[in-house]
Amino acid sequence: MADRLRIAVIGAGRIGAVHARTIRDHDRAELVLVADPDAAAAAELAAALGADSTADADAALTSDAVDAVVVASPTPLHVPHTLTAVAAGKAVLMEKPVALEVAAVDACIEALGENAGRVMVGFNRRFDPSVAEVHARVQAGQVGTVEQVTIVSRDPAPPPSEYLKVSGGIFKDMTIHDLDMARHLIGDIESVHAVGQHLDPEVEDVYDAATLTLTATSGAVAVIVNSRHSVAGYDQRVEVFGSTGTLEVTNQRASSVRLHDASGTEQSGPFLPFFLERYRRAYAAELGSFIEAALSGAPQTPSIADGRAALALAEAADRSARTGTTIDLEVAS
Amino acid sequence: MADRLRIAVIGAGRIGAVHARTIRDHDRAELVLVADPDAAAAAELAAALGADSTADADAALTSDAVDAVVVASPTPLHVPHTLTAVAAGKAVLMEKPVALEVAAVDACIEALGENAGRVMVGFNRRFDPSVAEVHARVQAGQVGTVEQVTIVSRDPAPPPSEYLKVSGGIFKDMTIHDLDMARHLIGDIESVHAVGQHLDPEVEDVYDAATLTLTATSGAVAVIVNSRHSVAGYDQRVEVFGSTGTLEVTNQRASSVRLHDASGTEQSGPFLPFFLERYRRAYAAELGSFIEAALSGAPQTPSIADGRAALALAEAADRSARTGTTIDLEVAS
Amino acid sequence: MADRLRIAVIGAGRIGAVHARTIRDHDRAELVLVADPDAAAAAELAAALGADSTADADAALTSDAVDAVVVASPTPLHVPHTLTAVAAGKAVLMEKPVALEVAAVDACIEALGENAGRVMVGFNRRFDPSVAEVHARVQAGQVGTVEQVTIVSRDPAPPPSEYLKVSGGIFKDMTIHDLDMARHLIGDIESVHAVGQHLDPEVEDVYDAATLTLTATSGAVAVIVNSRHSVAGYDQRVEVFGSTGTLEVTNQRASSVRLHDASGTEQSGPFLPFFLERYRRAYAAELGSFIEAALSGAPQTPSIADGRAALALAEAADRSARTGTTIDLEVAS
Amino acid sequence: MADRLRIAVIGAGRIGAVHARTIRDHDRAELVLVADPDAAAAAELAAALGADSTADADAALTSDAVDAVVVASPTPLHVPHTLTAVAAGKAVLMEKPVALEVAAVDACIEALGENAGRVMVGFNRRFDPSVAEVHARVQAGQVGTVEQVTIVSRDPAPPPSEYLKVSGGIFKDMTIHDLDMARHLIGDIESVHAVGQHLDPEVEDVYDAATLTLTATSGAVAVIVNSRHSVAGYDQRVEVFGSTGTLEVTNQRASSVRLHDASGTEQSGPFLPFFLERYRRAYAAELGSFIEAALSGAPQTPSIADGRAALALAEAADRSARTGTTIDLEVAS
Repeated sequence: MADRLRIAVIGAGRIGAVHARTIRDHDRAELVLVADPDAAAAAELAAALGADSTADADAALTSDAVDAVVVASPTPLHVPHTLTAVAAGKAVLMEKPVALEVAAVDACIEALGENAGRVMVGFNRRFDPSVAEVHARVQAGQVGTVEQVTIVSRDPAPPPSEYLKVSGGIFKDMTIHDLDMARHLIGDIESVHAVGQHLDPEVEDVYDAATLTLTATSGAVAVIVNSRHSVAGYDQRVEVFGSTGTLEVTNQRASSVRLHDASGTEQSGPFLPFFLERYRRAYAAELGSFIEAALSGAPQTPSIADGRAALALAEAADRSARTGTTIDLEVAS
Repeated sequence: MADRLRIAVIGAGRIGAVHARTIRDHDRAELVLVADPDAAAAAELAAALGADSTADADAALTSDAVDAVVVASPTPLHVPHTLTAVAAGKAVLMEKPVALEVAAVDACIEALGENAGRVMVGFNRRFDPSVAEVHARVQAGQVGTVEQVTIVSRDPAPPPSEYLKVSGGIFKDMTIHDLDMARHLIGDIESVHAVGQHLDPEVEDVYDAATLTLTATSGAVAVIVNSRHSVAGYDQRVEVFGSTGTLEVTNQRASSVRLHDASGTEQSGPFLPFFLERYRRAYAAELGSFIEAALSGAPQTPSIADGRAALALAEAADRSARTGTTIDLEVAS
Repeated sequence: MADRLRIAVIGAGRIGAVHARTIRDHDRAELVLVADPDAAAAAELAAALGADSTADADAALTSDAVDAVVVASPTPLHVPHTLTAVAAGKAVLMEKPVALEVAAVDACIEALGENAGRVMVGFNRRFDPSVAEVHARVQAGQVGTVEQVTIVSRDPAPPPSEYLKVSGGIFKDMTIHDLDMARHLIGDIESVHAVGQHLDPEVEDVYDAATLTLTATSGAVAVIVNSRHSVAGYDQRVEVFGSTGTLEVTNQRASSVRLHDASGTEQSGPFLPFFLERYRRAYAAELGSFIEAALSGAPQTPSIADGRAALALAEAADRSARTGTTIDLEVAS
Repeated sequence: MADRLRIAVIGAGRIGAVHARTIRDHDRAELVLVADPDAAAAAELAAALGADSTADADAALTSDAVDAVVVASPTPLHVPHTLTAVAAGKAVLMEKPVALEVAAVDACIEALGENAGRVMVGFNRRFDPSVAEVHARVQAGQVGTVEQVTIVSRDPAPPPSEYLKVSGGIFKDMTIHDLDMARHLIGDIESVHAVGQHLDPEVEDVYDAATLTLTATSGAVAVIVNSRHSVAGYDQRVEVFGSTGTLEVTNQRASSVRLHDASGTEQSGPFLPFFLERYRRAYAAELGSFIEAALSGAPQTPSIADGRAALALAEAADRSARTGTTIDLEVAS
């Protein structure tokens, strides 16, 4: 088993840059290549981090100098890029969502066959130290039987309208993280009810806010509350209510300064502004987990099956919101 | 307009005792009479507070020495006691719920006719200083347009099984407070979706936990999460998310002591144990509002119409939980 | 042993009114008389609480209808009023400070002789539920050996200048509470160092802020930080740092509302404004302790010896601040 | 002005490694060399970060391939290493303390002459985002006139006894950071009073805890409370009380998880364990400030004069604790 994993990053956009820098800073990883059809963007990112660059994604995906790839290309390319890399023997860390349709994920899973374990889907929040701690403590029985989970996830501001057009809608783009979190904490979901809201006339999306109720086969219920615009900042909270206690992840701040004055006695600083800051350590831990599995040959987690399950829940939520009915899901027996 | 309101309390049970003591301590009220079929209980409570007692509720409801009555008798007697008192010209503070069926409330409203304004329904949480502050700040526009409301309400432990048998179920007994709170904060509700859980085999109720999603005619959505057993204590939180900010009511504690030691760095004391402690000041403020309206002749709020609306939502929630469908409500135009 | 203690309050001022109302609301106390040379003030307070009144303090202090008195007269009358009442066989709850000079306290102690145990000095903060909890947990060894105590005590605004002129200065008037708290938590003090500040030109006092360092015979050190003007409100904190943990009493608020908006993400409401609100429950608990000892004949605590010790520390602090030297105290062996 | 600063780190110990890694991760810095008499230690650290290594400190301090050096050698070498580097035209970031005696610092300042501005002293806490925010807000007048500062600084556990023997004692080793912080927030100090405690028999130091009171020429007073053993973890708090408000820096935690259960309702995770974690971002910001001044030629801050002033306060505190007197300082006019 090698000491360090040589990694190429496919996509020099915002999330690709996060991964590239995380790789550069990791003791057991080496950033060898950045690929992007925008050759200048690839070159600039690569130069800043001491790596090579290329405009040819396929070359990167199949290069002999590369052990693993991070697929951070646009969503429609996630599946083809992943299949090419896996065919070339690489481990793959694929950004979410796997695709915009469950059928496409099923096709990918079939094509991967017994190599599916080489693919990790980037549900980074599982690796957030606070979320991971809650998960571990839940698994260790610290709150007894989990009965109710409440997830609040609100973005500070909506993405640009050109992004919204290709995002697949709030459930596949934004809620999908919370759907994976709910599965992570309470297991298989058997029904979904969703209410969508369109509040901000400036946002060209059917729904820019949503509230979901999920029931699990365990008997637990999860509530998810989303909004694309939270003036107080990135609002990321999780609460697990169990028979013997409650665990919660509260919002985090960059500074620990509080002001007390005549107008109020406790004024804390702003939340960590957005996912790059809030989940910085999550990306590093995600990469660490990916590297460890890639080097040891263990199956990657979250798996592409997790990616499929979250997407199926997102599709169900969308249907529920549009029809006003509760959607039952087929749960693999 | 008289200076002080002479009040009789009907019912010497737990909630009757709360009201009796609150009246005794109020500057503009005088506790004159406590009535209970259990004459000894009435006498004991009355003696401790310097009042007279009787086993004859009707005598108290119609006594010339009484300006107003607090109806804290068992739920099936709420309507008859209220009607008797109003017929005798008294103002009435009626404990919730008005009745266990909407039809009974409608009959009461019809019988009251133009005297309905003399009746306050005891949704005490509206008068909690923190809730009242949030409501006032919402009304003052401090969070802009209200978009999402989250209410968590969990009791420390279920009531005795003999109480559960007559309580009308979790939605009419417990959730009804949260349903009134939701209406108070976002106005008329047009649809209700509820999921019930039966988690504790010891609790002889169909549901001992529930999750509700309410949509308001305003476009806002409210989520309510209930449980009859919260080992960490009485869990009472409200959050109003608006277009320009979020207001929240957090849990309260009896002491402000925190311990930091090797096993953890911030350990606060328990929540206020239950409603008598948590809403002590709410009961006092509720009484103050009742007295003021009774003395001035202004219509009481929350009104019996509010009591009806909350009960109708509770019935709808029960139906939704049993059928798995979303229930649409008739909203008075 | 009687069931209820019949109590007269001497002094119808602000603090006298607090005691009178607390007595009225206490199950085992009866407010029988309010005495004040200002007969109208006495009558008004008495009428509101269902008691009699008099302008003749001596009559109240010696009345057969009275078992105990609360001495809330001006400081120079504390000792004579107390001696008269004790001579008449009453129990006495005396407001702090006992006097403005240690010599006067010594004379009082000598005059009381073996009846000294019938006198409680009103260091109400010992009875605050949070402080009492910290004290009990410290005694129970929850933080191991106490090593350092930090007390922050800041008033929202200075008292009127006519009060300041007779107050005896910041150390005897304000710090005395903190000096008693320090003794309560770490025992006998053997040296005092104080720095005085005169910050507000409007305040006609030598010092309107102060910082003290006390060393105890136990080896522990206490720091006290005082100010007469805290724009954020009444700032009352205590922290006990021990070998196995830290206990702290944080500031308290009337409401539990927090606002998150674009200008800040956690804005809590104001502190409880001043001592009447912050220490309301302390006054009730203090009275309860006084009644219990008075009815059972047990010696009162805090004793007049505690009152003397705190005053001696206040005198030492004053001397230290004026001379810049550390003052050693005689500790009773 | 060059784009990137080529830096050598002198000393491959714990703090040297922190600086080396921080340099490696900085956009405008290049780690070129690690020097340590323990050649293996230097080589290992250098290899991990892609730099060269040497056992010859002088070679590193004068190398043409180096623009600046971080002096993280043992305290007695701070001055000679700094003088060698400055003579060779380098910018120097020198770890604290400059030396163990004020006289040695004065000799260094004299030897540096007009090059003193090329030397930064590593008071990293000034660069902590929270401390920097408080400082900026104080400078901006957000709390009016600063009147009282309270600094609590407690280490989780004492350093090894071999370190303690050469540390210079608690005031020069540990308090020196807080003394610099006090100067940073309230300016020149004119008197120091200190009480030392020796609490832990295992710690071979005269004092393992201390409490200081500093008076500033501005009229403000600062209190510092130190301990070498805090079982709850690294306790780092600062509070600035001013005429119009209070700013505080609270302790920080690695996770934002809280547990509520039957034994307590709010249990947060441990503090960030020690300075490497708590001040990680401070080291990065410190380096950034150093680089900017080195590249632009601006004088470094904190300066060697700041290092001298903090050491003089530490010496005064030591004398005060040993003699029980208040020590007046000469303040440069």
